[in-house]
Amino acid sequence: MDISKYPQINPPPRLLMGPGPINADPRVLRAMSSQLIGQYDPAMTGYMNEVMALYRALFRTENKWTMLVDGTSRAGIEAILLSAIRPGDKVLVPVFGRFGHLLCEIARRCRAEVHTIEAPWGEVFTPDRIEDAIKAVRPRLLLTVQGDTSTTMLQPLENLGTICRQYGVLFYTDATASFGGNPLETDAWGLDAVSAGMQKCLGGPSGTSPVTLSPEMAAVIRKRQCVEEGIRTAAHQDGDDEMIYSNYFDLGMIMDYWGPERLNHHTEATTALFGARECARLILQEGLDNSIARHRLHGDAMLAGIQGMGLETFGNLNHKMHNVLGVVIPSGINGEQVRTLMLEDFAIEIGTSFGPLAGKVWRIGTMGYNARKDCVLQTLTALDAVLNRIGSKTVQGAAMQAAWNHYASGSL
Amino acid sequence: MDISKYPQINPPPRLLMGPGPINADPRVLRAMSSQLIGQYDPAMTGYMNEVMALYRALFRTENKWTMLVDGTSRAGIEAILLSAIRPGDKVLVPVFGRFGHLLCEIARRCRAEVHTIEAPWGEVFTPDRIEDAIKAVRPRLLLTVQGDTSTTMLQPLENLGTICRQYGVLFYTDATASFGGNPLETDAWGLDAVSAGMQKCLGGPSGTSPVTLSPEMAAVIRKRQCVEEGIRTAAHQDGDDEMIYSNYFDLGMIMDYWGPERLNHHTEATTALFGARECARLILQEGLDNSIARHRLHGDAMLAGIQGMGLETFGNLNHKMHNVLGVVIPSGINGEQVRTLMLEDFAIEIGTSFGPLAGKVWRIGTMGYNARKDCVLQTLTALDAVLNRIGSKTVQGAAMQAAWNHYASGSL
Repeated sequence: MDISKYPQINPPPRLLMGPGPINADPRVLRAMSSQLIGQYDPAMTGYMNEVMALYRALFRTENKWTMLVDGTSRAGIEAILLSAIRPGDKVLVPVFGRFGHLLCEIARRCRAEVHTIEAPWGEVFTPDRIEDAIKAVRPRLLLTVQGDTSTTMLQPLENLGTICRQYGVLFYTDATASFGGNPLETDAWGLDAVSAGMQKCLGGPSGTSPVTLSPEMAAVIRKRQCVEEGIRTAAHQDGDDEMIYSNYFDLGMIMDYWGPERLNHHTEATTALFGARECARLILQEGLDNSIARHRLHGDAMLAGIQGMGLETFGNLNHKMHNVLGVVIPSGINGEQVRTLMLEDFAIEIGTSFGPLAGKVWRIGTMGYNARKDCVLQTLTALDAVLNRIGSKTVQGAAMQAAWNHYASGSL
Repeated sequence: MDISKYPQINPPPRLLMGPGPINADPRVLRAMSSQLIGQYDPAMTGYMNEVMALYRALFRTENKWTMLVDGTSRAGIEAILLSAIRPGDKVLVPVFGRFGHLLCEIARRCRAEVHTIEAPWGEVFTPDRIEDAIKAVRPRLLLTVQGDTSTTMLQPLENLGTICRQYGVLFYTDATASFGGNPLETDAWGLDAVSAGMQKCLGGPSGTSPVTLSPEMAAVIRKRQCVEEGIRTAAHQDGDDEMIYSNYFDLGMIMDYWGPERLNHHTEATTALFGARECARLILQEGLDNSIARHRLHGDAMLAGIQGMGLETFGNLNHKMHNVLGVVIPSGINGEQVRTLMLEDFAIEIGTSFGPLAGKVWRIGTMGYNARKDCVLQTLTALDAVLNRIGSKTVQGAAMQAAWNHYASGSL
């Protein structure tokens, strides 16, 4: 092969204002450029312990088992589902977008008996509706999505933990899209498991997934314990319950690697861990509540700007995530042409949509490192210019002034 | 939490001369510090296509399906095994160290009928012995480890493809530890699937796993196709065969994401991909044969030095990987005390061992960025000094002179 055709990496500069990934905080990339250390170096295990403590603060939990799964956010979801669901277990999934379907899909691969309730895309569920379904189905687990980026909606979770405890249901949420930019109270809301990702409000690159497990969830997983040959000793005992049908995603083995036994499993993705540590550290320096307020401020400014431009938004705004907005593509406008002009001539990326919203809705993010005034104003002015360029007449400049007014009002 | 107790990342400087991870090439870390781009940005999909081409050259294959699995090297193994093995399938695993046990363990989690043959740790298998076992077991898959770091041995694979074809067996190898530092000829040797990792001879951080699949293996996986709800369209059809019991590790879905359809699956770990691209690019710039020769040169120099010090080596030296050496801990010496002094006073890490070799053998690596003369000589002088410090008398300096002689002789 002619290797001279492969020069060193040089990605084009982009302002990523889609539903994620977004630009990484440069401090995170710097942390990730640190040289490696051995996986059992005391400095490394020390960093692993720090990561556990930092993510406990972000998840707002006392859960001992708060750690990273080495893979993208989908890996964190699958690790929890494969470790918790035994074949034949009943699960209930309230589906209000694509990522609800993903939970069904993964649960089906775990050979669960999957029950769903559905809400129209753009809406969420009331606690009563979920309680009724729990009463009817009697599932072992309730699998929820907190923020479904496909619709931009945020499912309220604060009342579901009490309901789950009442019916003996384990309560999981996928917080990939919402984590760090919207409230999440693992312990106060009675969550048994949460997984997240780096590439949204945390401002890092995709590639590692923070998870937290309640003591009840950890006990369920421990019952399925099996230690692999080649490292097992006479002191290791298998659990009473059916084994987990994955080695890589066996959270019992991952606990033994992160816990005091430090039993060898995978080789921790050190660079990703350095990044995850820095993401958490930066948000906690800012203050988690301040980070959430910042996401709300810039999300609301984007909303004011889009409305000021005369565009319609998608979904129930009372239940929108702070960090992403659905914008209805005006009739007669080719959404992909707009995205291409935004990318090629302004170096700004906004998002397309999946499934029933494909071709109908753009998704515009304001999250992580890009939850900033300059990003909001630049995106609005570029979108305004592009729309006018291709024949959708808006009052040029109104969007930007509306967003600026929002900032000037100082309202949170 | 008191965030001031968590300063920015500052890992101690270490020379990592264990069985991996080793120090990342600084050029790889720099490539990984590049800013992110969107997952469907033409620049990003262009880089994904480049990664496929670069790894085809490293795997020495024409296989279209040569791509990355987002997770550590163990994720690549599990993706192949889960995607290829249907419950009840017979697999044959020649076990000559811990990572053979790992293949059995993962195959068991796939609900395979697992058959093994075993060689003493420190030895490998003849093709005849493997052929006899294939004849007796008639497996659907032969699962091999090319280089088992637990024993430092390299299983010869070049004659196994012909045998596998003769008996209709799919042929897989885990090349994590050997890849880039020892010969591997995917197509010439008739391999149907290979997986690798970054943290050994490739000189990158753990976190993504290159895999390659023959057309036959890809066809087997395609038969198990299922496309998830939320993104499936009327044009998508499920395969005839039993589904894959994982979404994250469904290589059919990963093909659809890397292939022209670009069907959304996980969000590619962009930073890890940038690193994997740079690792491959650097080896191909050097020349793959030159990289293998470099690993051999420095591995042999380390061997000469260890023998010059009067220490015994572990295992059959005719079948040693180029990049790692087992060293018998001299009697009366506490191996962990030596490792601690090496780490604390010289900042050099050498490896311990697993299972039957624990406490009996150190493993010393010469791989990737650390397959260099200065690393070999520094490690030998430090080990020499430490051993003499704690009472194991060697002729001080002899090790270093023996290694230096090896370099001076110019022998490869």
